[in-house]
Amino acid sequence: MGSLKYDLPPLALVRPEGVEEIHRASMKILSDYGLEFRDEEALAVLRENGARVDGMKVRFDPAAVLEFVGKAPSSFTQIARNPERSVTLGTNEIVFSPVYGPPYVLDRERGRRPATLEDFRNFVKLAYLCPWMPHSGGTLVEPGDEPVETRHLDMVYSHLKYSDKPLMGSVTSGPNAADSVALAEIVFGREAMRESPALVSLINVNSPRRYDERMLAALKVYARARQGMVITPFILAGAMSPCTLAGTLAQQNAEALAGIALAQMIEPGCPVVYGSFVANVDLRSGAPVFGSAETQIGAYASAQMARRYRLPFRTSGTLCTSKVPDAQAGYESVLGLQAAVLSGAHFVLHAAGWLEGGLCAGYEKFVMDAELLGMMHTWAKGLVIDDDTLALEAIGGVEPGGHHLGTEHTMAHYKEAFYEAQLFNYEAFEIWRENGAKDAYERAAEKVRELLSDYEPPPLDPAVDEALRDCLKRRKAEILGNPAAVAP
Amino acid sequence: MGSLKYDLPPLALVRPEGVEEIHRASMKILSDYGLEFRDEEALAVLRENGARVDGMKVRFDPAAVLEFVGKAPSSFTQIARNPERSVTLGTNEIVFSPVYGPPYVLDRERGRRPATLEDFRNFVKLAYLCPWMPHSGGTLVEPGDEPVETRHLDMVYSHLKYSDKPLMGSVTSGPNAADSVALAEIVFGREAMRESPALVSLINVNSPRRYDERMLAALKVYARARQGMVITPFILAGAMSPCTLAGTLAQQNAEALAGIALAQMIEPGCPVVYGSFVANVDLRSGAPVFGSAETQIGAYASAQMARRYRLPFRTSGTLCTSKVPDAQAGYESVLGLQAAVLSGAHFVLHAAGWLEGGLCAGYEKFVMDAELLGMMHTWAKGLVIDDDTLALEAIGGVEPGGHHLGTEHTMAHYKEAFYEAQLFNYEAFEIWRENGAKDAYERAAEKVRELLSDYEPPPLDPAVDEALRDCLKRRKAEILGNPAAVAP
Repeated sequence: MGSLKYDLPPLALVRPEGVEEIHRASMKILSDYGLEFRDEEALAVLRENGARVDGMKVRFDPAAVLEFVGKAPSSFTQIARNPERSVTLGTNEIVFSPVYGPPYVLDRERGRRPATLEDFRNFVKLAYLCPWMPHSGGTLVEPGDEPVETRHLDMVYSHLKYSDKPLMGSVTSGPNAADSVALAEIVFGREAMRESPALVSLINVNSPRRYDERMLAALKVYARARQGMVITPFILAGAMSPCTLAGTLAQQNAEALAGIALAQMIEPGCPVVYGSFVANVDLRSGAPVFGSAETQIGAYASAQMARRYRLPFRTSGTLCTSKVPDAQAGYESVLGLQAAVLSGAHFVLHAAGWLEGGLCAGYEKFVMDAELLGMMHTWAKGLVIDDDTLALEAIGGVEPGGHHLGTEHTMAHYKEAFYEAQLFNYEAFEIWRENGAKDAYERAAEKVRELLSDYEPPPLDPAVDEALRDCLKRRKAEILGNPAAVAP
Repeated sequence: MGSLKYDLPPLALVRPEGVEEIHRASMKILSDYGLEFRDEEALAVLRENGARVDGMKVRFDPAAVLEFVGKAPSSFTQIARNPERSVTLGTNEIVFSPVYGPPYVLDRERGRRPATLEDFRNFVKLAYLCPWMPHSGGTLVEPGDEPVETRHLDMVYSHLKYSDKPLMGSVTSGPNAADSVALAEIVFGREAMRESPALVSLINVNSPRRYDERMLAALKVYARARQGMVITPFILAGAMSPCTLAGTLAQQNAEALAGIALAQMIEPGCPVVYGSFVANVDLRSGAPVFGSAETQIGAYASAQMARRYRLPFRTSGTLCTSKVPDAQAGYESVLGLQAAVLSGAHFVLHAAGWLEGGLCAGYEKFVMDAELLGMMHTWAKGLVIDDDTLALEAIGGVEPGGHHLGTEHTMAHYKEAFYEAQLFNYEAFEIWRENGAKDAYERAAEKVRELLSDYEPPPLDPAVDEALRDCLKRRKAEILGNPAAVAP
């Protein structure tokens, strides 16, 4: 199935004048307030390219920022180990990618616990098996049982080994990014990767207005290797930006464009994605809130900003604040994902598995979200209108009060007429009760067991696998032999 | 709070040419295939107004249908017992109305059971207490403990007694509709009601292409009293229409317009709403499916059809197939409601409380859905862009890496900056666990108990209340003394 093809009109929440107002405010932030870049080399690049550098604070000429932003491609292809699974960002494809970052996992049987490498591999497998999920993602969970210095190697290897879908590299340091590139080069070859990136990695801004050492180190590595980057201010409005969304969007825009401009200064034409992650805090308690109406407004408006600069756009999917995959999780997740789809996003991170404000990846939540992704694939087909679907003859052929079950037209279409649910239950109450009265959580747990037990890995050339494993072994020995050499 | 004010652009799923194709197909259904009207008087009215009547089958001249449809107002006000709670249908208001019709109720403590009049009253109270729900609805549940012949009286009385929001009348027979009008006249007065309806009632088409005896009897009563009607083909695509949505929409359009034209023949200018209820059957099992991608497509496209005829539009809200308020219910409900809002609907039936394909009203589900309605009220405010919300000074005043908690701008806005959740839980995992690790179902059960125990009825003139109760007493005696006289 692959990417969702979205040819419907994106929902434009903000009028064109509003987009310009946010643009102008962000230009003022860039020129008057500036951003902090905590990396000497990045500061030098910025200075060389005309930015005003004062300590770590950098102020920009708006016209120059726009000129550099204009060097970024409006779309690009990310190659996959299986060439049929390559994706394109910036066109009519919506690429769903799994949850990213949680230190914990939850499943119904074992409860909530720190994530391990085995969990990581399981989520790679679940994403691989999901026909609606064209991407393998990045740090699906933090494998806490592996040394922090080397776990990036295990993660990148797991993606390459257990899936043939496109993946994300590590951004936890410059050397870790370089390791990600080196592993990918074993599979894809350096030249092919310079042509079209094999990695699209997540560069987060430490909002407000700060690019930190680790992210800049990774950004430099990926830019020089011409690998893709999703440059995303991570904003909880009310804490990391004003509690008014217009200002939040202006700040986000300034932050994203500054990083994109830097990437273009380092490597003109380097593929980048305009990233948005707008959530908010509950101002009574300070707690973060995901999957809210505010998240929706942020997604729609951010998509319009990205379109203004002709950049591929990333937002988030099935965000939720709920601790468990209950009704709250369901409501919140659809609010997030629906806005992502209708905004016309190109890359949707956290499209399945996210729980608890991103602190936990849910096994059952993953397959619940997968059902939603399937439904969205159906939704995006829109309304097909032709003589066959208008079905006038079929309508005339059924008398008032009759039914269409078993008519010739129904028999010709029933197989692909409607989305076929994998998890959601449509049984009548009595049958559902007889079958154990299982709620969605219980059914999802069964589905997870079934998927993982049926999983078969995609073929991988044994020579490539060996080269990857050799690389892992060598790098682990180097890193664990001298951990200080790799930080940050 | 009242109605949601929706000034954002509705999402147009279908291109203008597509709307015209569906229109043309529906005109062919009206002129060539016709509809069945199972009421002699209705047939006579149709014949007098130029329709070709053959037995109970009626074929229409498309131009004549459009002429009669054109007599319906494009918007109208439904008056409420509390004048401040009157609503207008057909403008920028989205009026949410509760679940309609379930014979069963579910609550967490007592489980699923046949609904009673006490349940009915409880749902009136829950709707009354919900600030996001401007409407009291109609048959919130079927009170199975009351005689079928007289329960309509108890229902209408309960709405008038326990709420001061606008309500719906009975449609189970002509006399029951007349009783609804009589009770409303006690409160509102006949003249005021002819000016602006006090009742907006639900006339369902028995799709395909049949108006049955009961619905036509009720339609005649309400039209003559100039009361509002929501004329809604009830369609499960694949069973009651073709399994292709374009044909389903053409059939729905023909069905809705035929009933609207009949109402206008009886009483030109009578307020009507173009109703849509498009769900589908699971073609593997024949089971109905609600809250699906297909439901969404149906809602968006139907709204466009209603706009073509300048008619107020009704669709459905938090539909779901799930038997319990679990994650499935959450996903499905948002899919339904989100489409209702973004379609630009004017009247959203089943906006809270629906479970199990409409067979069951959930107490906890009601307050979960209410949270979603509150979030949609926030969403509909859209993005406010002005100097204050752009907050440039506040952005410049916080240094890179700092935070906006407690800034002057945050303090000035925090109270109404974000939607304030009533039920959804944003606590950190550890705190949530200490507080009992309650999922949404458990918290919703607590919320229901709290709401019902705090409920206080809106003031009602004792003389009016007495007149209503006298009417109930008299009509019950008449009906139960001679049940045969009232059917159908």
